[in-house]
Amino acid sequence: MNSTASFDPGKHTSVTFPEGLDLECGVHLAPLEVAYRTYGTLSEKRDNAIVICHALTGDQYVAESHPLTGKPGWWARMVGPGCPIDTDRFFVICPNVLGGCMGSTGPRSVRSDGKGNGSECWGTDFPPITVRDMVRAQHSLVKHLGIERLFAVVGGSMGGMQALEWAVTYPHMMLAVLPLATSPFHSAQNIAFNEVGRQSVFADPDWHGGRYWEYGKVPARGLAVARMMAHITYLSEEALTRKFGRRVRRGQLASQAPETSLSMFSDIFEVESYLRYQGSSFVNRFDANSYLTITRAMDWFDLAAEHEGDLSAAFAGTPVRFCVVSFSSDWLFPTSVSRQLVNALNRVAANVSFVEIESDKGHDAFLLDEPDFDRTVRGFLCGVAEHAGLA
Amino acid sequence: MNSTASFDPGKHTSVTFPEGLDLECGVHLAPLEVAYRTYGTLSEKRDNAIVICHALTGDQYVAESHPLTGKPGWWARMVGPGCPIDTDRFFVICPNVLGGCMGSTGPRSVRSDGKGNGSECWGTDFPPITVRDMVRAQHSLVKHLGIERLFAVVGGSMGGMQALEWAVTYPHMMLAVLPLATSPFHSAQNIAFNEVGRQSVFADPDWHGGRYWEYGKVPARGLAVARMMAHITYLSEEALTRKFGRRVRRGQLASQAPETSLSMFSDIFEVESYLRYQGSSFVNRFDANSYLTITRAMDWFDLAAEHEGDLSAAFAGTPVRFCVVSFSSDWLFPTSVSRQLVNALNRVAANVSFVEIESDKGHDAFLLDEPDFDRTVRGFLCGVAEHAGLA
Repeated sequence: MNSTASFDPGKHTSVTFPEGLDLECGVHLAPLEVAYRTYGTLSEKRDNAIVICHALTGDQYVAESHPLTGKPGWWARMVGPGCPIDTDRFFVICPNVLGGCMGSTGPRSVRSDGKGNGSECWGTDFPPITVRDMVRAQHSLVKHLGIERLFAVVGGSMGGMQALEWAVTYPHMMLAVLPLATSPFHSAQNIAFNEVGRQSVFADPDWHGGRYWEYGKVPARGLAVARMMAHITYLSEEALTRKFGRRVRRGQLASQAPETSLSMFSDIFEVESYLRYQGSSFVNRFDANSYLTITRAMDWFDLAAEHEGDLSAAFAGTPVRFCVVSFSSDWLFPTSVSRQLVNALNRVAANVSFVEIESDKGHDAFLLDEPDFDRTVRGFLCGVAEHAGLA
Repeated sequence: MNSTASFDPGKHTSVTFPEGLDLECGVHLAPLEVAYRTYGTLSEKRDNAIVICHALTGDQYVAESHPLTGKPGWWARMVGPGCPIDTDRFFVICPNVLGGCMGSTGPRSVRSDGKGNGSECWGTDFPPITVRDMVRAQHSLVKHLGIERLFAVVGGSMGGMQALEWAVTYPHMMLAVLPLATSPFHSAQNIAFNEVGRQSVFADPDWHGGRYWEYGKVPARGLAVARMMAHITYLSEEALTRKFGRRVRRGQLASQAPETSLSMFSDIFEVESYLRYQGSSFVNRFDANSYLTITRAMDWFDLAAEHEGDLSAAFAGTPVRFCVVSFSSDWLFPTSVSRQLVNALNRVAANVSFVEIESDKGHDAFLLDEPDFDRTVRGFLCGVAEHAGLA
């Protein structure tokens, strides 16, 4: 990890809304910029649009190579011509979340509250945002694209939180919602892991109270540790055992480890090498203040909170068709919370499909090759299209 | 967290072995100091001694108040007159592990390899140790106390690893072994969490390459983050939800959080407050280099490794009576690995009792009030005593 690393968000396709957005915290944020990518063609009837909401560290490059890393799109397997989310048929819109660092307004944007010298970033002064704020920013984008009604909103993990929030905030604006490997609230354990990640960033000497860019630094070590820890939670114990077990890499002595005559101590476990790579590569594509802003938004997510804890009430009378998917080995967003969601939807007689996919890949399964999952998504979208009389 | 904090190990009852110990890494460590506490009275026949092995961050103060924190002994519920491990009946010995920081030889000891200025600590130059090294140091203590044969060895978590290692290394030196909430090997996930904790310590600016005491510092923030993360793994998701849920503490704004007009953002979740306290209090009683040394020893623990992966072979012909205990909600050392251990013991026709205790308290359950667990330990020890003809 390079403590002199710096994060450059680069240039991205975006739309600017001069009128801005009233945030839930009471701050009026203007202008509002929403970066996004689209795939496929909007039909003449404008009835084939699908919004894909990305997860915590995702972005809008869902089906094309990432401009910073050169890696394939994070869901290229799922989105494209002939894919389960078929861009020969659907017009896919993937926005970068509010608070993110790939072109949408976030902590790395120039602050617009009249404070600072006119060219200064928000940094930690960026107003706190919620998942609903993210969705309302996306709603502005959808309207801007001339779309009155979406075919569907799809998202996994934090993307699933946004998909659920879409259904609650704009229930008449889409036919279907697919909340995948997600939850209608962040649990105590979820919050706990996020908090440790934040404390790790705060502990980094290059954090500089959140104004690290003024020093030409990023809190690379703290952010890498946060990412390493989070990465463990994305994988199942089975997946870690299958991928790495107790295998070692010979002679890859950690610089901090003591010198020794016994060869085993000059080795590191493959799982350590893997996590270190995950941590160090992350800091080159993600801004620490965005990480803090977005994890905080996740922590505050609780759809039932506005209804005295009654999750059903959030969905009362919803016309939306839901397809809830969980993965059997996901312990971060376990099947039990998906069942709570499904039960709440059932109590208000919502139209719900629920599938638990057998997988040993943990939370990350929604991003990985799971044929049953692909079939579920493809089949559900086809069913909704047929029901709606789409060609 | 106070970055100018310093850790003072204080004075402890100990015995010094000038002849030292040949470590598995090939280093000869001399002198060897083993700090310990005893409770109860050794019988005339010297046949009532129980060694209790402590966990990663435990110490020898199992049944009396801790000299640094003033808190009750970590297993005061279990060890004492009339307790499940009854000190009216048994003579209990609890050593501080080799590599620890409460009086036994460890990274804070003066280095004895002829390097340095004669008063300098080992620090990161402390030789790497294994769980077997820990047990061999304890064996020296037991011999020193004039005990040829132990009644039992008991330990939870890393203490259970030591208990298992006792059974493998000295199978004729005890009647019974109780491995509790433990595993015969460290899993990929276990290693992964340890590695993130270590990286967090390395990332602390007060780490100073492991020579922090020369600067009057401890890597308090990094060690606190490591402890916070580890603490999440000690609790179940259910326990976190029951204890904290999504409850907030009003107005406890994190100093790093942005100012805002919305009250909810000036709150922190109770689970965050709890973890911060766990992290910050830990650094006053534990040495960072000990944390690194001991976590590494845990990572290398794999009883089957010396027998081409055949765990049974490690126990072939063992005369020891085993009582293996797991807890249903322990995801760090889950019941499935206890079953692997029991199956291996069964394959060599060892005398094994196995109990999975129903509990929602996670890994920490072995330290907490679980009446079924207490009854299991008391009953097993009584049975062994009866079988052995102890009064």
